[in-house]
Amino acid sequence: MALIHGGDVESFIRYYGREPIDFSANSNPLGLPESAKRAVIESLETADRYPDPLSRRLREALSGHYNVPVEGIFCAAGAAEVIFRLAAATRPGKALLIAPGFAEYEIALNTVGCELLFYYLEPERDFILTESFLAEISEDLDVIFLCNPNNPTAKLIDPELLLRIADTCREKGVLLVLDECFNGFLSEPDKRSMRPYLREYPNLVILGAFTKIYGMAGLRLGYCFSFDFELIKSLEKVGQPWCVSSVASAAGIAALGDREYLKRSLELINEEREFLTQGLERCGVRVIGSSANFIFFLSHVPDLGSLCREKGFLIRDCSNYRGLTKGYYRIAVRGREENIKLLEAISHIIKAGS
Amino acid sequence: MALIHGGDVESFIRYYGREPIDFSANSNPLGLPESAKRAVIESLETADRYPDPLSRRLREALSGHYNVPVEGIFCAAGAAEVIFRLAAATRPGKALLIAPGFAEYEIALNTVGCELLFYYLEPERDFILTESFLAEISEDLDVIFLCNPNNPTAKLIDPELLLRIADTCREKGVLLVLDECFNGFLSEPDKRSMRPYLREYPNLVILGAFTKIYGMAGLRLGYCFSFDFELIKSLEKVGQPWCVSSVASAAGIAALGDREYLKRSLELINEEREFLTQGLERCGVRVIGSSANFIFFLSHVPDLGSLCREKGFLIRDCSNYRGLTKGYYRIAVRGREENIKLLEAISHIIKAGS
Repeated sequence: MALIHGGDVESFIRYYGREPIDFSANSNPLGLPESAKRAVIESLETADRYPDPLSRRLREALSGHYNVPVEGIFCAAGAAEVIFRLAAATRPGKALLIAPGFAEYEIALNTVGCELLFYYLEPERDFILTESFLAEISEDLDVIFLCNPNNPTAKLIDPELLLRIADTCREKGVLLVLDECFNGFLSEPDKRSMRPYLREYPNLVILGAFTKIYGMAGLRLGYCFSFDFELIKSLEKVGQPWCVSSVASAAGIAALGDREYLKRSLELINEEREFLTQGLERCGVRVIGSSANFIFFLSHVPDLGSLCREKGFLIRDCSNYRGLTKGYYRIAVRGREENIKLLEAISHIIKAGS
Repeated sequence: MALIHGGDVESFIRYYGREPIDFSANSNPLGLPESAKRAVIESLETADRYPDPLSRRLREALSGHYNVPVEGIFCAAGAAEVIFRLAAATRPGKALLIAPGFAEYEIALNTVGCELLFYYLEPERDFILTESFLAEISEDLDVIFLCNPNNPTAKLIDPELLLRIADTCREKGVLLVLDECFNGFLSEPDKRSMRPYLREYPNLVILGAFTKIYGMAGLRLGYCFSFDFELIKSLEKVGQPWCVSSVASAAGIAALGDREYLKRSLELINEEREFLTQGLERCGVRVIGSSANFIFFLSHVPDLGSLCREKGFLIRDCSNYRGLTKGYYRIAVRGREENIKLLEAISHIIKAGS
């Protein structure tokens, strides 16, 4: 079980010979919307055709949905591919990353030999990004990656601080890549997004994904927005032209139109996040972050991850994140029945250990 | 209509407001196999899960089908992605390419600043690769890309010459990337493939794709084989971990098991390729190459491509290939009804022009 990310269902199945209940990947518990399913099935009739290399229909749908011009949108097979393309297209010499943070920023920047600086979030401050970050933004930096809410800590960045970061980056000529892949799970996504500021900050790139909010991690679909249209154009050239499959494109367009699914998702997640958070705290676990569709916590039970796995649950052991030690875990919010089962398992493990 | 590749159906639809009959992309005229369609639909139930980053089930299926060890197989979202990953992982300093040839080799090598040398196939010899190529393989080369049958010329490489090329490459420390994406359409695919020689030539990488032979260009699925297991491993690290979608993986596994589909495809294509070739020659067109599922020809009618488009057909105008001038075209083999329609259109255009 050596894969670095959550969601490694295949290793579990190979080891235990059965399906796990997966809390380790942050996907929408409602799964792929029925509307997207139907769109995929319909698109299979023309699956022998190459996808449109310009993803025109999908970009138009995103443009209408998020009010970003089509020329400011690039789509790929998941936000992870966008991250690698950003690294390849901009070839930054020096980058500042947050630790703990999503591992793929670091891995992608390593492919272009970029020097990496890390800003370590402090456990004493519950891993909240503070003003002291501003002092780290220097002119010799080429790029900064931020994630809001941050993965795995589930902590939001203060909106005013975020604007000051964007200001400082613009002033010092630093590209700011802001990962908003979990934005859609927030109660007020639009208020928490930097999308309205894209025009004002051409040094800003916002990452987004269908993966999580529309439960389609298996289909692979992500994108980025920027008013630096040259940068957007350059992303097309550093990889294959047909990176967005026609099925993913069809699913994405259908999902964007499915407001009912989104409404149900947010209702479920708001309720269940609260339920899980309270349940975890009752187990004696310290919940550090709880936002969007995931919860970050600290447990003093050694090997909680493998003990959960023995009971059929995958949770994300975060000890392999830069800046974290043993004891930190992340779980996704799922449906009530599964949440109860997980809480029972954790409660049982903790009682047995004490 | 500025896209460089064939298969640009979307531009046609936007311009004419209706569907074209597409002869410009070399896909299987039978379309996606029913078995693959069913597998995709079934896989949608778990489309919210991340795909297996190691593509274990798919690689095992490929391993069983083609008798190549699992460690010697890398899968990605189409052979085009494999090409870009090969460039990124090996970062060659100097490459030798065939002209005319598939444009993505050149584009991918350009992303890593590779110096490119071109071996120009001669129209006087009908673009056949000859022994003189051997003299071009020097020690200062890092990589050579070949395609067999070559795209767009539809010419096969003599098997003995191919072995001598592989020998010379091994001797001189040159990586040989052999694109066999159209191999499955040949009458005797196994006899024409270099797969049996992979163990003997660890400097050999063979590219393959589900795209064409299994009519799934829209789903994105390709792979490569090599006995250089370190190279295979390195391909994982130069891009995102989840490049193969779970739907493409499911479709691929199902397709590999569908021998009936393959049998029907080859029967249809053999018959229709002959039918189209004869029909084109009757039109007064000079057929230069005709193998696998595509035909390469020379016509002295100016703008045959746009005249066909006016009549609702996309054919591949090859004048933007390095090493070709105006007048060269490539068409895919389709079903009888569509082939008749295209021949009628071409015949009509040629008569009107003379």
